[in-house]
Amino acid sequence: MLPFAQITIVGLGLIGSSIAHAVRQTMPSVRITGYDSDPAVRERVLELGFCDDVSDSAGAAVTDADLVILCVPVGVMADVAAEIAADLPADAVISDVGSSKDSVQTALAAALPGARIIPAHPVAGTENSGPDAGFATLFHDRWCILTPPDDAAEGDIERLKAFWEKLGANIEIMDPKHHDLVLAVTSHLPHLIAYTIVGTASDLEDVTRGEVIKYSAGGFRDFTRIAASDPTMWRDVFLSNKEAVLEMLQRFSEDLTALQRAIRWDKGDELFDLFTKTRAIRRRIIEEGQDDAAPDFGRTHD
Amino acid sequence: MLPFAQITIVGLGLIGSSIAHAVRQTMPSVRITGYDSDPAVRERVLELGFCDDVSDSAGAAVTDADLVILCVPVGVMADVAAEIAADLPADAVISDVGSSKDSVQTALAAALPGARIIPAHPVAGTENSGPDAGFATLFHDRWCILTPPDDAAEGDIERLKAFWEKLGANIEIMDPKHHDLVLAVTSHLPHLIAYTIVGTASDLEDVTRGEVIKYSAGGFRDFTRIAASDPTMWRDVFLSNKEAVLEMLQRFSEDLTALQRAIRWDKGDELFDLFTKTRAIRRRIIEEGQDDAAPDFGRTHD
Repeated sequence: MLPFAQITIVGLGLIGSSIAHAVRQTMPSVRITGYDSDPAVRERVLELGFCDDVSDSAGAAVTDADLVILCVPVGVMADVAAEIAADLPADAVISDVGSSKDSVQTALAAALPGARIIPAHPVAGTENSGPDAGFATLFHDRWCILTPPDDAAEGDIERLKAFWEKLGANIEIMDPKHHDLVLAVTSHLPHLIAYTIVGTASDLEDVTRGEVIKYSAGGFRDFTRIAASDPTMWRDVFLSNKEAVLEMLQRFSEDLTALQRAIRWDKGDELFDLFTKTRAIRRRIIEEGQDDAAPDFGRTHD
Repeated sequence: MLPFAQITIVGLGLIGSSIAHAVRQTMPSVRITGYDSDPAVRERVLELGFCDDVSDSAGAAVTDADLVILCVPVGVMADVAAEIAADLPADAVISDVGSSKDSVQTALAAALPGARIIPAHPVAGTENSGPDAGFATLFHDRWCILTPPDDAAEGDIERLKAFWEKLGANIEIMDPKHHDLVLAVTSHLPHLIAYTIVGTASDLEDVTRGEVIKYSAGGFRDFTRIAASDPTMWRDVFLSNKEAVLEMLQRFSEDLTALQRAIRWDKGDELFDLFTKTRAIRRRIIEEGQDDAAPDFGRTHD
């Protein structure tokens, strides 16, 4: 028994298209309807062929669905929910993949009163965007966090859980506010820092941009990957999870100031102690299968 | 004609052992003598067999060399130079691989008056350390920056250049102070930021360390790689390139504060503009062969 028979994916970028590929691979009998507000994306998805149907409106896309997943930037979640409100079947489960959850939950509940809403966040991605970027194994061994509201039906939660497990993900249930705090540190702050340092490096007078690029293998290039992520998506994440992001940023700035002071006053022991501690975290991430053990992320060296 | 016939590598960690492997592969007739101050490392290198000889003292290691490369943390460069001063052949070229160059140049010149000093910095590495971490292709298509003093012999520069080219590197000649400024932004600042954020994330009260590790695929794990780099090496880099590092840190902090303000005041356009600009830098790094074009650094997704 499959958890859903007819799914609709609204928003056919990296995550939406990866869900479609993964459903095709793991639940081939499931019918996939897609919609994207960009006509060029809709056309490209028809060419790529990973949806059974591509609709011309969000409303038309959801009429037959038993699961609707909104894969759009969190800033337009409310608008998209309003677009489908009249057509969403009463028994359909509606979910999303947004990187912040408290604001999304509020937006969906307001736009879709009485709907069976179970927000979700698959913690997976690459720096690429758009319908060509998706692939079936994106969610393998990654965590998908569900943040069901208190009144969600247990059966709906179980079905969505089974769906994501089919795609290869591990499931965690979490309170949306706690989700937003955890992701502020594991995802939002890293992206903000990466965007900042890449910006800083490209605005120097004494060091040319060509030099920055040429010698980026010294460490800088690692940051440029996540600083190449989708600008709209990330603008919305920071604004929708403002409180937690600012809190984490404040802590980071304090720690950075302490390190700056240690360098200025030649406190080598302080530096050494921190640098030793941070090594242990990497080891645990690898042990728990959340990154490659291969040196240099497994980059080819030939 | 090979540029050197007998090389001595002092310090047999990631870089020293990689040089040895690369010399074995590309210049098999060259005799390699190694030395490391840690007896356990010397013993391990004998087992691994990538040196022809392993000496019991730095002085004994250099007596027959025509090229000596110091592959030790920059903080002990002066001490190691003093250790070999009495035994260094007058016609040997002496070089190093340190990540800061102005302080190293000063230290070597003071400890080895009259020696044929040509400092170098191969901009390459992984997060792993020690004699087991080295491999022959580490320097392929990476830049190696030479910072010869004004009185260096042109012939010595050419020979060292030829040596690094044999190992697969591209060569750039640079003033040591400019090197330190460029590397402060492309390497030292990224490491400092990475160490800081990993420290910040491991010291939270409301988010457990287990959660940080579990959801690290949201971006955080990228930072843990370079924050797993050798603590001694990096302590020394920050202290020996203090001025440039503090200058870059100051600029970064200003930019971060501006971004923090943009988030607080909902200035989405400012965020979007920066995030769009940073994408272009990634593209150029890939175009110039300084990183993999594969998404997610080519991490396996299966």
